[in-house]
Amino acid sequence: MRQFMDDNFLLTNDTAVQLYAAIRDLPIIDYHCHLDAAAIAENKRFRNITDLWLGGDHYKWRLMRTHGVPESHITGDAPDAEKFAAWCGTLEMAIGSPLYHWSHMELKQYFNWHEPVMAQNAAQIYIHCNAIIERQDFNVHSLLKHSRVEWLATTDDPADTLEHHAKIKADNIPGLARILPTFRPGILLEAGHRDFMDYLRKLERVSDVKITSWGTLLAALSQRLDFFASMGCVISDHSLEPPVFDATATDADAAKILYDMFYDGASVTPEQAVAFKTRLFAWLGNQYQARGWTMQLHMGAMRANNTRMMNLVGADTGFDSMADLPFAHALSRILDDLENRDALPKTILYALNPTADDMLATMIGNFQGRGIRGRMQWGAPWWFNDSKPGMEKHLTTLATLGMVAHFVGMLTDSRSFISYPRHAYFRRILANQIGKWAEAGEFPRDLPLLTKIASDIAYYNARNYFS
Amino acid sequence: MRQFMDDNFLLTNDTAVQLYAAIRDLPIIDYHCHLDAAAIAENKRFRNITDLWLGGDHYKWRLMRTHGVPESHITGDAPDAEKFAAWCGTLEMAIGSPLYHWSHMELKQYFNWHEPVMAQNAAQIYIHCNAIIERQDFNVHSLLKHSRVEWLATTDDPADTLEHHAKIKADNIPGLARILPTFRPGILLEAGHRDFMDYLRKLERVSDVKITSWGTLLAALSQRLDFFASMGCVISDHSLEPPVFDATATDADAAKILYDMFYDGASVTPEQAVAFKTRLFAWLGNQYQARGWTMQLHMGAMRANNTRMMNLVGADTGFDSMADLPFAHALSRILDDLENRDALPKTILYALNPTADDMLATMIGNFQGRGIRGRMQWGAPWWFNDSKPGMEKHLTTLATLGMVAHFVGMLTDSRSFISYPRHAYFRRILANQIGKWAEAGEFPRDLPLLTKIASDIAYYNARNYFS
Amino acid sequence: MRQFMDDNFLLTNDTAVQLYAAIRDLPIIDYHCHLDAAAIAENKRFRNITDLWLGGDHYKWRLMRTHGVPESHITGDAPDAEKFAAWCGTLEMAIGSPLYHWSHMELKQYFNWHEPVMAQNAAQIYIHCNAIIERQDFNVHSLLKHSRVEWLATTDDPADTLEHHAKIKADNIPGLARILPTFRPGILLEAGHRDFMDYLRKLERVSDVKITSWGTLLAALSQRLDFFASMGCVISDHSLEPPVFDATATDADAAKILYDMFYDGASVTPEQAVAFKTRLFAWLGNQYQARGWTMQLHMGAMRANNTRMMNLVGADTGFDSMADLPFAHALSRILDDLENRDALPKTILYALNPTADDMLATMIGNFQGRGIRGRMQWGAPWWFNDSKPGMEKHLTTLATLGMVAHFVGMLTDSRSFISYPRHAYFRRILANQIGKWAEAGEFPRDLPLLTKIASDIAYYNARNYFS
Repeated sequence: MRQFMDDNFLLTNDTAVQLYAAIRDLPIIDYHCHLDAAAIAENKRFRNITDLWLGGDHYKWRLMRTHGVPESHITGDAPDAEKFAAWCGTLEMAIGSPLYHWSHMELKQYFNWHEPVMAQNAAQIYIHCNAIIERQDFNVHSLLKHSRVEWLATTDDPADTLEHHAKIKADNIPGLARILPTFRPGILLEAGHRDFMDYLRKLERVSDVKITSWGTLLAALSQRLDFFASMGCVISDHSLEPPVFDATATDADAAKILYDMFYDGASVTPEQAVAFKTRLFAWLGNQYQARGWTMQLHMGAMRANNTRMMNLVGADTGFDSMADLPFAHALSRILDDLENRDALPKTILYALNPTADDMLATMIGNFQGRGIRGRMQWGAPWWFNDSKPGMEKHLTTLATLGMVAHFVGMLTDSRSFISYPRHAYFRRILANQIGKWAEAGEFPRDLPLLTKIASDIAYYNARNYFS
Repeated sequence: MRQFMDDNFLLTNDTAVQLYAAIRDLPIIDYHCHLDAAAIAENKRFRNITDLWLGGDHYKWRLMRTHGVPESHITGDAPDAEKFAAWCGTLEMAIGSPLYHWSHMELKQYFNWHEPVMAQNAAQIYIHCNAIIERQDFNVHSLLKHSRVEWLATTDDPADTLEHHAKIKADNIPGLARILPTFRPGILLEAGHRDFMDYLRKLERVSDVKITSWGTLLAALSQRLDFFASMGCVISDHSLEPPVFDATATDADAAKILYDMFYDGASVTPEQAVAFKTRLFAWLGNQYQARGWTMQLHMGAMRANNTRMMNLVGADTGFDSMADLPFAHALSRILDDLENRDALPKTILYALNPTADDMLATMIGNFQGRGIRGRMQWGAPWWFNDSKPGMEKHLTTLATLGMVAHFVGMLTDSRSFISYPRHAYFRRILANQIGKWAEAGEFPRDLPLLTKIASDIAYYNARNYFS
Repeated sequence: MRQFMDDNFLLTNDTAVQLYAAIRDLPIIDYHCHLDAAAIAENKRFRNITDLWLGGDHYKWRLMRTHGVPESHITGDAPDAEKFAAWCGTLEMAIGSPLYHWSHMELKQYFNWHEPVMAQNAAQIYIHCNAIIERQDFNVHSLLKHSRVEWLATTDDPADTLEHHAKIKADNIPGLARILPTFRPGILLEAGHRDFMDYLRKLERVSDVKITSWGTLLAALSQRLDFFASMGCVISDHSLEPPVFDATATDADAAKILYDMFYDGASVTPEQAVAFKTRLFAWLGNQYQARGWTMQLHMGAMRANNTRMMNLVGADTGFDSMADLPFAHALSRILDDLENRDALPKTILYALNPTADDMLATMIGNFQGRGIRGRMQWGAPWWFNDSKPGMEKHLTTLATLGMVAHFVGMLTDSRSFISYPRHAYFRRILANQIGKWAEAGEFPRDLPLLTKIASDIAYYNARNYFS
């Protein structure tokens, strides 16, 4: 029997213990997160543990709702101490949840708190943590330094001014992680979206390029791509819900759709929307490839399922879940189109619904090559799949169907400045899995080789891949 | 090495042994089964072990067909002793099957028989069991009492008279489980079904409401809902194969479809059938919510695949399997429509095909809330998933993606009066899983807390949820 | 801690060790492979280990591309020694891959080489293996004998002359495995395929039947079926990507489609293609059944995803992956149509995408029966699923949802004459799984019974099933 979340947490064999010791202190590259650049620019501090932990964490909110906590104590106006107590009462019962582990790892790493969270010690933890949070040096910069973050990539719209990134760059804080933007188009590709025209106007303003046609749209986007690149961007991100591809569409079609919208006020049919997206995406992919960027594509999310709560508390508040539409064929055609034009960038494919795991792990194999190690990646298990079973499944599936040794490793996908123990969580599970293979006699127990593989996945692969 | 199915069967750690001791004798709430109310009303006795075990159990029949047993010895007219011998020969080879465990647990609990079943001891078991079955006190009432069933919910059509339920209620047998009906509409929602009009006539007779319109249809159904409620019903059940939703349909559309059928003899198009179902389901959901009932929705079954055997031996004889159509979007729309009108009842979602597991376990999170603990449930792994791997996967998936502590636990979904060891099977697996988490250091080994969680899932959550 | 791939490789319990000892030397029946009959007929020898191992193995090629090996060293014209070194460097890092195990098992069995493969010992292994390969007795016949292959079934087009099979038969080599053809129609069922008419011409020539109509097409095919049967064929094979079924199509429709193609040069609509395939498949299934053959149906592959590489290096070079379209309904209709006409042969269903596993394992249950033990089979985990996790999942899923004891066991699906250790790999995993069930107390530790089950799955079931 093992002690509760002790130093050997999740390490079930001796080789794993040795491997984890070798990788635990490696820097962190958080190549996909949703941290607020403004908070970094201003070196934000926090009101209290409720602000820090429950301010915007829809993972925790979902669990609290399941536990029967009233919305007043989740996103409502109940006092912070009561909200925190409601969360502690929830967590106490969350056996088997990754949030149980994340939360206790965070308390340990950032607050030196080692006891299990319960309703009955909520007040004590509240006081304990708040005393630490009140210290002047408990701020975003010190949290990132303490967490050993080497660089991180935020998520940003092409029309974003990146002013906070600019300030961070200008301030040049010693020891602070490099903060890079990620180019994430959204409405841009949705020609039929009711905010599409407004979005083009916004793009126009920020790019200083008058958008009157397909050609000027691309010119404006070129300006944004160049600008993002100048701010250190090396990664793009697309949500494809679901992927679509029209093999017959041409740039002329896309231009015509735009022309009709501009000059005739025409509405866009679903077929035209697919044609437009196909061509614009084809152009963007090529741009990413030309700039040496990595392209992230993620699939399988179904958002804002609860209209009532969308109206009450807005988007991204815990009402998203997994989609289940097939998309292998369309995704294959999208990638093939790029590859066939020598325009396919390094690409990471993610799916929220793990039913797509094996499909994606074999899909990447179709486009490996050109002498680039790990060119195509089946991305980390994130969001709902960011859990012990999720990571174990990802590592073993990738090892079985591809080469796990070239995996670029974990990300946080988080809005929280204290989510970095998730990398430690991953590294423990990684060390444990590698140790299990070796100790089962399924791979040589060659410690230098095992350490190299573990270190590569924990850190070096990402460093090389995004460079 | 462990002994064959001994007292510690499936309990692989000490904590599990302690937890199972704490929950094994809790009462059973079987909130979803297919027991025959008439058999309960008349306190049925059984001809012999073949009658009891093989009379209507399509799980066993499927296995016998796989083993090469001729149909004469399955649903045919072979002598009971021969049928039983054929089953024993089948079971002997059924390594890894839940039926292997269920059967041996049933023999142990109800017949005090502890040896492995083999073709060569079939005759001996036959004599042994039949001697017990012949006793006057081997009847449905004593089986339910012996099994510690507190209450159970049968499955009943809205047009059912519930006469057997009435007799059971009137007889008021001391110590007998409460026998409640479940409101399970079937053809009612299938406007295009060839038996639809006949069904309305049947509904008319039993409700004593003349159905001439949408309004009178709802009036007749209100009568049935009230009547079911008066008989103790607190649960409804719908098979959605697959879920459909037409966001544009109105009650006026549904009324028009009905009107055209009634007065013009019009046939129903597939689109009209979807519109009708959307509106009637929307009304029913609201009714369930208004009455405080729980709504069960199950998906992913593909029935009566074998036309030849359907013609030979009828429905529900072992020729159903898993469907694989995507349904997340339609299901989300159905639930959102209810929730948005403050009309969503407590709901349990089941899927027969485990590819939907993660999707459903996240779907429920979209509609948790309103201060109701465990309001939305991803239901127990039943039918083909009612197995050791199925239950382990369900518990760990629910713990990872939601809160397993608020799970309402197992059901039998069975037609057999000796299927209750399946609850013991579940409780062993539950205790084992909770013990594993604690002994791995992934959760505190706090026995009172662990016992509370195990007991809640085994019994108390269901007691609270359906009250 | 266990030694690297020693005699007890993958055997984690004592019962498993005993069971494996009992089944390891049983003959091999390789009922589905892609070995080259010409190579068998001419008793091919090999240039060197690169020729033998890397000549046509797209599994290895995919891994090399992932590792960043340039195409010159995969399918290109780099020197054999360099290609081999590139492969060794790749394999060294392939932790968790089935190729890691296969390769080391092959080196051990055929070359008595026991060290882990690394970039740094590539040259040494190259010399070591080539010295053995150069021996006169290192040839196809001796490899098959050494591998204990009792019989194997190649994969052949109906229009194939089977001349190499005829030579092998005529040569009657003592101790050589029986080499049987498999009847695998491809273009034949694709009425809309651009090579369809050419294919019919080829069929005409080889069958010596003038094809001018539906009737003469069936006559030509009857000739081929008879001819294949005369050459020992007992198995057919169809790739359904995806399965389609038109319940309304008649033979007259199929005849009309053919007539219009022949006499009007009409093109075939997608609907007509489905109608034609439905009827021709219905006829073929009946033919297989009438001849006592087994029908293999496989689903879920998405081929030739990379157009650029298709153009550069051709088909079957490592650019296939898993499809994800639902197909349960169509497959059910296809099987039901045959069964309802008493025309369903013994059938093996395979899917490349494991999301279909549970669905298929329950689908076979719909058509078990007619007194034939294991009549319907959910086929072995092949291609991407041919791995330790894949086989463990297959065995436990089949045991849970059907009867694993009647499983016809493993195949190689391989183009390599030294792929037979994959059967040993399977047998180890099989012995281990059965041992685990017994040692966990979930099945009696009755060694004779366990040995019978293990031996049946390893060998005897296949021997009986295909006889």
